[in-house]
Amino acid sequence: MKTINVDLGERSYPIIIGRGLMDGNFDLADYVHGPDCLVVSNETVAPLYLEKLRPNLAGREVASISLADGESYKTLATMQTILDKLVASGANRDTTVIALGGGVVGDIAGFAAACYMRGVAFIQVPTTLLAQVDSSVGGKTGVNHEKGKNLIGAFYQPRVVLIDTDSLNTLPAREFRAGLAEVIKHGAICDPAFFAWLESNMAALLEKDPEALAHAIQRSCEIKSGVVAEDEREAGRRAILNFGHTFGHAIERCLGYGEWLHGEAVAAGMVMAAELSGIAAADLSRLKELIAAAGLPTEPPAIAAERWLDAMGMDKKAQQKQLRFVLLRSLGEAYISADYDRAGLAALTGAPL
Amino acid sequence: MKTINVDLGERSYPIIIGRGLMDGNFDLADYVHGPDCLVVSNETVAPLYLEKLRPNLAGREVASISLADGESYKTLATMQTILDKLVASGANRDTTVIALGGGVVGDIAGFAAACYMRGVAFIQVPTTLLAQVDSSVGGKTGVNHEKGKNLIGAFYQPRVVLIDTDSLNTLPAREFRAGLAEVIKHGAICDPAFFAWLESNMAALLEKDPEALAHAIQRSCEIKSGVVAEDEREAGRRAILNFGHTFGHAIERCLGYGEWLHGEAVAAGMVMAAELSGIAAADLSRLKELIAAAGLPTEPPAIAAERWLDAMGMDKKAQQKQLRFVLLRSLGEAYISADYDRAGLAALTGAPL
Repeated sequence: MKTINVDLGERSYPIIIGRGLMDGNFDLADYVHGPDCLVVSNETVAPLYLEKLRPNLAGREVASISLADGESYKTLATMQTILDKLVASGANRDTTVIALGGGVVGDIAGFAAACYMRGVAFIQVPTTLLAQVDSSVGGKTGVNHEKGKNLIGAFYQPRVVLIDTDSLNTLPAREFRAGLAEVIKHGAICDPAFFAWLESNMAALLEKDPEALAHAIQRSCEIKSGVVAEDEREAGRRAILNFGHTFGHAIERCLGYGEWLHGEAVAAGMVMAAELSGIAAADLSRLKELIAAAGLPTEPPAIAAERWLDAMGMDKKAQQKQLRFVLLRSLGEAYISADYDRAGLAALTGAPL
Repeated sequence: MKTINVDLGERSYPIIIGRGLMDGNFDLADYVHGPDCLVVSNETVAPLYLEKLRPNLAGREVASISLADGESYKTLATMQTILDKLVASGANRDTTVIALGGGVVGDIAGFAAACYMRGVAFIQVPTTLLAQVDSSVGGKTGVNHEKGKNLIGAFYQPRVVLIDTDSLNTLPAREFRAGLAEVIKHGAICDPAFFAWLESNMAALLEKDPEALAHAIQRSCEIKSGVVAEDEREAGRRAILNFGHTFGHAIERCLGYGEWLHGEAVAAGMVMAAELSGIAAADLSRLKELIAAAGLPTEPPAIAAERWLDAMGMDKKAQQKQLRFVLLRSLGEAYISADYDRAGLAALTGAPL
């Protein structure tokens, strides 16, 4: 069992990583300060893990709600069903909300916890690779608007993140690969040594070798929590974690949420962002090859030029109505800029200059 | 013009109080850091003040949205219309949301500002007495759930609160009196001298004497911001600002939101809470007399016992499923307690022990 501390002053919390932490092998009740909690899960994850999580909550009243599975349900309407459930359970300010599932469950449940009675305690138990290496860490919560990803939400930190890596054994291969996109991203933006390690160990990761997995998850959580600790509310540097996401979010929106998985869209988006960055050809090749080795797309789907621009216009990094991109100087060094190559963007999206 | 500073560290902000501050007499554009803002108002206030506020925003792009007027529209659905308008306006993270209106407009607009792109800048321009002396100060934002007041929301501080006391000249008498309930509350919970001043000056206040009004608003903002500065997120002492509100919220919910105004329900609720406190008969009489002098109810409407208890069960101060009340030791000294007089509560609500 490994513990990583996310250093955010009075909002600091631990990330606990290990095998077999459910079935009562880690006492979550220590983090449930009131008498009761609500476990938010979905119809896929609840049958697999809800009963396995109960022994971790011994001595607490446990209510649960199961959401429909998929990005297309990450809406304000779904969030409202969680709030209704909290009200119906007579939940008070000392109730704790626990997210058990992937990124969608964590994002909606966290936003509901942030809003219910202006904020109740929140715990993340991520069961997908994407949630374990990325979305459960750092306090971004929210739902989609039909015009853009995560346009409605809150920065709201959990009390603890519990990662039982055994839950990856039931994760469909496509979702597992999608999670690798964010792992690769962490190497690409700020850790060339980790990027090189991924090049050497991608085969082991795809075979779910426990040691390789543990290292990839731990290093991803360390990189992400380090960036978040510097800039919790994304006033500046935190935006580098969005590498590939301006294009990726536009792909998800244009195809309809859930058509491509988030990680797949980010994979193709990272290649586009690297091309826009004008990095050395050798670096671009290494990025494309690692993404391809993970079984992820290196090219976007066909999208009309005007739809690219419209979808990217809702990007949260925009300032003064001006798009900003996360670009690479080289593999392992990212920066944020509004001074990107206009001709390059036109070439990538087919849009006029 | 008076300025009161709300001391909340990096979230500190000024409250500006004066006559005739609209019509461009105070530069709000200094607080609008990005190129554009969205003014949220309602169908009653917008025709009176939207054009008068524009000169205060010179040099900024100003969009506006007008909500239906009334507590019954303080819902997640109304909040969604503001979010839709922000998206349709192409609002980015550097957009500013400005609430122009009473407590309902401020609460919904503030919550929308808190959630849009996980938080954009927010400004309050309260135009009712209730909003000027209470709801615009302290960062409580939110909407009602059909089962309870303000069950969904966020603590989210404005950048500045601009109080033009001339706006009270157009306020209906019933709403003006409702605002006085919160003014009286501030004296009752922590300032016996202010309570005595109100006893001597209630007639002048009801005649809207400018000097008396300015003093009442200023002293209310000072008392409230002092309490909030000690306990921004209501971990403890801030809850004294809820004196009369456990009963008051239950009255509002049981009658249907908007039937009694919030201040009217709080007025009757304060008398109930004072009776539950068992304070000296002379203090209780003074409280009742001041409330009656303000033209406010000193008794609750007829509500069945089981409805009282059900409605109060959703109070946000409850802990371990246990009701907590804000009680008085004497006029000017409030405290919070779960150790209240059960027989007294039964007598007040008609409920069995």
